[in-house]
Amino acid sequence: MLQKKNYTVAVVGATGVIGREVVELLEERNFPVHELIPLASERSAGEKVEFFGRNWAVEKLAGSSFKGVDIAFFAAGTAQSLAFASVAVSAGAVVIDTSNAFRNDPAIPLIVPEVNSHVIPRHAGIIANPHSSTIGMVLVLKPIHDAAKIRRAVVTTFQSASGMGKNAIDELAQQTVSLLNFRDIKKSAYPHQIAFNCIPHDGEFLDSGDTTEEIGLANETRRIMEDDTIRVTATSVHVPVFRCYSESVNIEMEKKIPADEIRAILSSAPGILVYDDPARNLYPMAIDVAGKDEIYVGRIRKDVSLPNGINLWLVIDNVRKGAALNAVQIAEHLVK
Amino acid sequence: MLQKKNYTVAVVGATGVIGREVVELLEERNFPVHELIPLASERSAGEKVEFFGRNWAVEKLAGSSFKGVDIAFFAAGTAQSLAFASVAVSAGAVVIDTSNAFRNDPAIPLIVPEVNSHVIPRHAGIIANPHSSTIGMVLVLKPIHDAAKIRRAVVTTFQSASGMGKNAIDELAQQTVSLLNFRDIKKSAYPHQIAFNCIPHDGEFLDSGDTTEEIGLANETRRIMEDDTIRVTATSVHVPVFRCYSESVNIEMEKKIPADEIRAILSSAPGILVYDDPARNLYPMAIDVAGKDEIYVGRIRKDVSLPNGINLWLVIDNVRKGAALNAVQIAEHLVK
Repeated sequence: MLQKKNYTVAVVGATGVIGREVVELLEERNFPVHELIPLASERSAGEKVEFFGRNWAVEKLAGSSFKGVDIAFFAAGTAQSLAFASVAVSAGAVVIDTSNAFRNDPAIPLIVPEVNSHVIPRHAGIIANPHSSTIGMVLVLKPIHDAAKIRRAVVTTFQSASGMGKNAIDELAQQTVSLLNFRDIKKSAYPHQIAFNCIPHDGEFLDSGDTTEEIGLANETRRIMEDDTIRVTATSVHVPVFRCYSESVNIEMEKKIPADEIRAILSSAPGILVYDDPARNLYPMAIDVAGKDEIYVGRIRKDVSLPNGINLWLVIDNVRKGAALNAVQIAEHLVK
Repeated sequence: MLQKKNYTVAVVGATGVIGREVVELLEERNFPVHELIPLASERSAGEKVEFFGRNWAVEKLAGSSFKGVDIAFFAAGTAQSLAFASVAVSAGAVVIDTSNAFRNDPAIPLIVPEVNSHVIPRHAGIIANPHSSTIGMVLVLKPIHDAAKIRRAVVTTFQSASGMGKNAIDELAQQTVSLLNFRDIKKSAYPHQIAFNCIPHDGEFLDSGDTTEEIGLANETRRIMEDDTIRVTATSVHVPVFRCYSESVNIEMEKKIPADEIRAILSSAPGILVYDDPARNLYPMAIDVAGKDEIYVGRIRKDVSLPNGINLWLVIDNVRKGAALNAVQIAEHLVK
């Protein structure tokens, strides 16, 4: 653990969607920051980041950026993390990485603090944030697993543009405007038109026909929950939504637990808001969860096709708890 | 079966999304129509429907509308079907209904012609079209069931606005424009904002927490496939897409069949186009399937969480094969 009163904190990708949220959360949660070092690509260098009423100039990310840095949040994408995380560690910083650069490395802690904060001290300089979809999954699965042992989960995700950064957000908006004006669309962030469409493709395709992110979701879930017996299969889908990931989750348990009890278990679990009143048309939706710290869970009901099955629907703000908040919570554990 | 050279055909809801498609398909498929009687509510009476180069005046739907009618397509919604289908039958017509008015009546044939056309002759005047999601499901499940016996399917749907009619289509477009112009939105077709959102709510909620449509999908699947042992659980979701339903389907089989063989089985099955080349970023998407007769199936892959499991992704044009085309195909069987 780090033992100071105030910390020098770098944010790599400080002008990006996740980086901005990290800076906002550091202020909102009153993180003990002595000096903020916002870093970004050359294009964004010179921009300002507001933090505790002061404007901090964005510096160009370089090998020398991490001198004196205690904690470095990496939120600039996989390539930057692979190139600069070890540089930051060599300079003495602890790296909290929100990209997928280190999620598959078994030596690097993969952390959702509500579930496995005890693994944080094992880090050797780098701590990885899981995929947003995984964070939503494990927050819900862990308390159910503790009560009823989960055998298998089948998940289908509904992922928003913000998970792919500013370019994807702009692309969704621009394509939408173009289509409503009967103009041709441009695409670069997504492989196909995202406006008014669903794209069942997140990550790279493997020979098996799964994507890296689908397999990652299964592997990350098992690792964070520290139980290799949990079987998970995922289908990851991009939908024309700006913020928040929704997930349709089907769960097979060893023990039979009625839906009401699952609801009670989740109500007292950390990081979760049970939002489940169908009679009043209340269930989690992306537009309601944007900006929220908790993941919302609803549509909790018995799966009629299984003796010990449960269906539920969860929504996570992928920018916040799915990335920036989870990273800041890890930092809070580091300095505790 | 009907035995004429040419038929008098009524289309109830002829100015609606599905009704218009029925009229187009009757022409496109050269259905032997002697006289077309387009029917609609008072509001639409007097409008014209083009059919084989001639304009047919839309008449107001009334008890007297069905005199001399051989086949009546009902595509105006549940209330009109409940009110007028028996009137049409009394007048001597065979009713093909695309609403959910009769889907749960075990005495009324529920038909997807590729799967259970042999049940058509059992009708007593009314034949029901299944839910669009069910039609997509059973077209894919039937050939797999014949080869490997399906034990269980877990499905999550991504449903488009056109499934709820013109009002929902307009609402999605108007909400989208309003939001992009920072104006307040109006809602009436959907219980919540649909633009840039996902709504896990199709149909009415039951005490179990499922919706009528989710339970309907399971029951309809078993009925059409004539096997009560197939277990199905569904989560039905509205997404901001204008046309086509996508479905993420996880299948557990009794027999182990590799993904390649499933692909081959589906390739030779009726009504299906296997569209599955991830290396070239080819998989079914709503924007590609709109206007197509076939349902598209892709992302066919082993489910790593089950010994005998398969995941796949299908897209069906809910207006066409999910409603109008299926109804016209039933009519073709009637006059064959």
